[in-house]
Amino acid sequence: MKPFMDADFLLSTPTAKTLYHQFAKEMPIVDYHCHVSPREIYEDKHFENITQVWLYGDHYKWRVMRSNGVGEHYITGDASDREKFQKFAEALPRAIGNPMYHWCHLELKTFFGYEGILNADTAEEVWQLTSEVLHRENMGVRGLINMSNVAFIGTTDDPVDSLEWHEKLAADPSFKTVVAPTFRPDKAINIDKDGWLAYIEQLGKVTGKAICTVKALKEALALRMNHFNQHGCRASDHGLDHTVYVPADPDTVQAIMEKALDGQTVTDREADIFKTELLVFCAQAYKYLGWVMQLHYNALRNPNSRMFKALGPDTGYDCIGPYNGQAALAQFLNALDRTNELPRTILYSLDPNDNAAIGTLIGAFQGPDVPGKIQHGSAWWFNDNKQGMFDQMISLANLGLLGNFVGMLTDSRSFLSYTRHEYFRRILCELIGSWVENGEYPHDEKTLETLVRDICYNNAKRYFAWREKE
Amino acid sequence: MKPFMDADFLLSTPTAKTLYHQFAKEMPIVDYHCHVSPREIYEDKHFENITQVWLYGDHYKWRVMRSNGVGEHYITGDASDREKFQKFAEALPRAIGNPMYHWCHLELKTFFGYEGILNADTAEEVWQLTSEVLHRENMGVRGLINMSNVAFIGTTDDPVDSLEWHEKLAADPSFKTVVAPTFRPDKAINIDKDGWLAYIEQLGKVTGKAICTVKALKEALALRMNHFNQHGCRASDHGLDHTVYVPADPDTVQAIMEKALDGQTVTDREADIFKTELLVFCAQAYKYLGWVMQLHYNALRNPNSRMFKALGPDTGYDCIGPYNGQAALAQFLNALDRTNELPRTILYSLDPNDNAAIGTLIGAFQGPDVPGKIQHGSAWWFNDNKQGMFDQMISLANLGLLGNFVGMLTDSRSFLSYTRHEYFRRILCELIGSWVENGEYPHDEKTLETLVRDICYNNAKRYFAWREKE
Amino acid sequence: MKPFMDADFLLSTPTAKTLYHQFAKEMPIVDYHCHVSPREIYEDKHFENITQVWLYGDHYKWRVMRSNGVGEHYITGDASDREKFQKFAEALPRAIGNPMYHWCHLELKTFFGYEGILNADTAEEVWQLTSEVLHRENMGVRGLINMSNVAFIGTTDDPVDSLEWHEKLAADPSFKTVVAPTFRPDKAINIDKDGWLAYIEQLGKVTGKAICTVKALKEALALRMNHFNQHGCRASDHGLDHTVYVPADPDTVQAIMEKALDGQTVTDREADIFKTELLVFCAQAYKYLGWVMQLHYNALRNPNSRMFKALGPDTGYDCIGPYNGQAALAQFLNALDRTNELPRTILYSLDPNDNAAIGTLIGAFQGPDVPGKIQHGSAWWFNDNKQGMFDQMISLANLGLLGNFVGMLTDSRSFLSYTRHEYFRRILCELIGSWVENGEYPHDEKTLETLVRDICYNNAKRYFAWREKE
Repeated sequence: MKPFMDADFLLSTPTAKTLYHQFAKEMPIVDYHCHVSPREIYEDKHFENITQVWLYGDHYKWRVMRSNGVGEHYITGDASDREKFQKFAEALPRAIGNPMYHWCHLELKTFFGYEGILNADTAEEVWQLTSEVLHRENMGVRGLINMSNVAFIGTTDDPVDSLEWHEKLAADPSFKTVVAPTFRPDKAINIDKDGWLAYIEQLGKVTGKAICTVKALKEALALRMNHFNQHGCRASDHGLDHTVYVPADPDTVQAIMEKALDGQTVTDREADIFKTELLVFCAQAYKYLGWVMQLHYNALRNPNSRMFKALGPDTGYDCIGPYNGQAALAQFLNALDRTNELPRTILYSLDPNDNAAIGTLIGAFQGPDVPGKIQHGSAWWFNDNKQGMFDQMISLANLGLLGNFVGMLTDSRSFLSYTRHEYFRRILCELIGSWVENGEYPHDEKTLETLVRDICYNNAKRYFAWREKE
Repeated sequence: MKPFMDADFLLSTPTAKTLYHQFAKEMPIVDYHCHVSPREIYEDKHFENITQVWLYGDHYKWRVMRSNGVGEHYITGDASDREKFQKFAEALPRAIGNPMYHWCHLELKTFFGYEGILNADTAEEVWQLTSEVLHRENMGVRGLINMSNVAFIGTTDDPVDSLEWHEKLAADPSFKTVVAPTFRPDKAINIDKDGWLAYIEQLGKVTGKAICTVKALKEALALRMNHFNQHGCRASDHGLDHTVYVPADPDTVQAIMEKALDGQTVTDREADIFKTELLVFCAQAYKYLGWVMQLHYNALRNPNSRMFKALGPDTGYDCIGPYNGQAALAQFLNALDRTNELPRTILYSLDPNDNAAIGTLIGAFQGPDVPGKIQHGSAWWFNDNKQGMFDQMISLANLGLLGNFVGMLTDSRSFLSYTRHEYFRRILCELIGSWVENGEYPHDEKTLETLVRDICYNNAKRYFAWREKE
Repeated sequence: MKPFMDADFLLSTPTAKTLYHQFAKEMPIVDYHCHVSPREIYEDKHFENITQVWLYGDHYKWRVMRSNGVGEHYITGDASDREKFQKFAEALPRAIGNPMYHWCHLELKTFFGYEGILNADTAEEVWQLTSEVLHRENMGVRGLINMSNVAFIGTTDDPVDSLEWHEKLAADPSFKTVVAPTFRPDKAINIDKDGWLAYIEQLGKVTGKAICTVKALKEALALRMNHFNQHGCRASDHGLDHTVYVPADPDTVQAIMEKALDGQTVTDREADIFKTELLVFCAQAYKYLGWVMQLHYNALRNPNSRMFKALGPDTGYDCIGPYNGQAALAQFLNALDRTNELPRTILYSLDPNDNAAIGTLIGAFQGPDVPGKIQHGSAWWFNDNKQGMFDQMISLANLGLLGNFVGMLTDSRSFLSYTRHEYFRRILCELIGSWVENGEYPHDEKTLETLVRDICYNNAKRYFAWREKE
């Protein structure tokens, strides 16, 4: 029996161990898609206790507690931090086989030096230890990032954002990690969602000109892209409920926009037309700017209306939405490729059943710009676990070139999540190691080293091509 | 090489063996969803031969024979019991990797003490042995149940059922297993199926009042729910071809019902509206009664019309029907949750691709009533095999709390099927054991014991909360 | 660690090794579905170099190169054969985990005796060796087939084909392998595709009568089926983008055909109606002729219009098209079964998510004509890899009788691809071996031998029932 989560956690063969310990472990982290706050980085925010770090904003953990019958009082309510932590600690042992179990213990070990097991009985000792450690000077956000050897952070930012904190970080020579904004224009594109109209007004104010036409909206977005580009932006991100491709002539799109500007509700089809027009425009601009386009799709958002009213979005109620959007996605990519305006693109579906379809679709739009121009994104969100990562990588390997994969990201709001890169790298090395040990790939250490280092770091470095700080 | 199906069948590690033999094996069985006859239990039915037990009603075995090119004469036709058994024994060795292979040999070993291999050559000796054993006094239905250590049986019953046999069983102090009815109102809800009109008349007769309105139908169902509740019912069950949620105003629903009462065919959309109305009504009632709601869906029923005419439903021709019903299901649960009328609910899809979507959906509607209020049901029907069980449990573990899973049921018509709980428990212990051996979960025997005993028995006991016999 | 791809490649247990080396390896190959040229067989075509064999027509390899950022100049363009080979050799090490890696090394070992690793550094030595070997007398197409112990080849042929080369091959006593045509009438059925009209004219010319009616089209197809049957045809093949079943009355179908004959575009629904009519007609004829019907579906073809214009179809741009066609497929099979006109049928979906649905659907239409009358086809195209084969066989085993599986085909254009049968057989033996070693199936060598030999050869022999050459 292997000890619980020791140095060889998830590594079952000599080759896997060698690959991880000699090559993967030391590579810097490229966290090209996450939701951390650049302000908190700049201000080097410190935390009072483990509940603030773990439970204030992590809806994954809220799900675990709700699934254990814990009431909202102890999750998003008024219970004390210590009480909330207790409820979480009580639920955790029931989460056998859940990545949360591993993430928590990886974080406790890496950042707090805790080697024990978190449960109802040990919650107090963990609370004490983590509180003590969190008050150390180097346990602010910057310390956590430095400890984690992070080379690049891609935050997620709204087009109207001033990027003030990115600018300050860029100007701060004492902090070496590159923190670049990511352009996420969902609010401008989602004409069918509450708040679109107000957002268009806000965007108009930021860009200094009222937005009454599709053309004006595109110009405003272009201005903001330019602003982002000047602040080192290397990528965009789109959160689509489902993929769309319903092209229409400009007059039709304009009429739809006017309808929405007039406060009327647009139909589903009208929304799809509008989104198609904007997505195509954005993608063409990304290509011009040399940015990466990220598409996240097949999510069913806010299905629980009672809790949506109480807590708002992103509070642990979203689900996998299995839409059949492969044909639309293919048409969208094709519309861009036809005129040679398809940017480097990463596809992420929340539905793991899409793995194989994505693996074949990316192969239909590769190009000589860069090896692996079109990427099958790392196992995302609900799939970000051992099985999900193995499935995504085995699928990618079967249908394309795993060797050109840009690898892992955290998609996280927490500065402790960098251990998920460790989790990914262990799984990557276990997978490659198993092939080598099983005689399915040659035991050629030089080639293996290159593959592992590339997937952990070099491929992403080449793909996102950020400018290092001087 | 491990011997064929020995005491450590499916258990490959020391931890798996310990968990099974020390904790799982001895737990009583809760068979909360099955199709056995309460009358046969009350009357302690005996069987003449193995064909009567195995081949008279088990369409799983009919499929095996048909897939081997066996004609209906030997399956549902006039061949002798001995001939039918021979044809099945000839087909079985071709079923390598099929759960039928394991179920048969588990049953032969457990109930008949047969340690050999069933095939064309051994069919005669198995026939002789099983015939001899079946004539023993304790080999009636009650004996089989007692031998299997069954604490609770949830049968499947029509609202018009008098529950006479449940009542007699409840009054019989010599039989300790609790046999509770399950309320399955499909015939009242399926307005688009042959026989609905006749059924509504029958329901009217049973409840003493002609049913001409939606309101009257609801009242009739409520009366029967009350009757079921008085007889210890703890759960309902719905067999939906696919999930629905198309709400409409009362007049619309009433008009649809009148159309059907008039003998006219309703459209698909009308049927969906009617079903939505009835399902919401039923679910609210279940919440009030404290019952569990079971939803079985994504089946393509009776695709072979020639054989449907010849043999009727449930004769081995149904298939997986991969409908994309996640959004409708989410809306249905939400409609109930909005008013705090969502009962404890178990979701079973026949399509294994739905595992991940279900795993995320249940997480969006958990509540403090009970840990694991919304459940991802055990691998159902075509998925009730080693791979299917691993897949369902790994998915559940990744996306929720495996520790709160209510576990296995047989869904069977046979009293020999209790060995499928053994099958499930071995797989459960193998899975948990593999995590522990691989350093993915602590080797803490007390916690592991709790988890295993809970998933085998305690969770279901708490979830269904039946009243023990005095 | 196992050596790279040695004699026990993919075989991890003693039982797996025994099954493969003693039983599977020596069975003749039945390659019942492929795309090789009968003319090249008759003329015993020789190749100049490895690029001609590997890279002239293999779009799987083109995908690998494109995914590595290689430009078309080196793929389908004017670069020299040596340059193209170099680019492929450079890409191959990135294809870790891809079946291409194994196929290439299996072919290099089997046909060229090369035991090394192909990469950028060894490309020159491999080029030299393969060039030398390819010039040997016995390295023509016939030599490769003989070396591979191929009993039966089912080519893929258009109804208008004269079958001249099949006839010559049949008349050539020096060549023992049976080469039979397969009837693939896609061009006659795809009324919605470019070229249909021209094809109908061509078919009219070949059959000596202009085709202006559905009836005439059916008669023409029947004439060609008769021609194919006289040349030993044992199977048909249909490449459907997605499954269809939209029956209509004869006048409607005739009107649709007239619309298309008039050069007008038919609607999607009209196309589905026309296809349904023709598919039903063909299937009934196949039943009469005793042919096998193969249905390949759920492909998204030619999504990249820029490259389609440049290179045409079948150049490495097709994708998995996840259509939800289970209900239509069930209705189609049922329409045939109803009148006892359902031929032996093999279902292949390009979407691996369809495995379970197919596994249940075939079970609903089995019949006494032959064991395993309706088959779940071997893992097809993008699924033709280790994981895909395990998944297809485990699914088939769980839901039906693996013992009656007709097994592997190459679907290939290359005469080196017969090694894929070796790949399949190793995986089959590994799978069965793992069950035996794990105590899930008895270690009864006689039964195991029968199963393995049947799946490798005897089942296909019985199923396709070709006439041996004298």
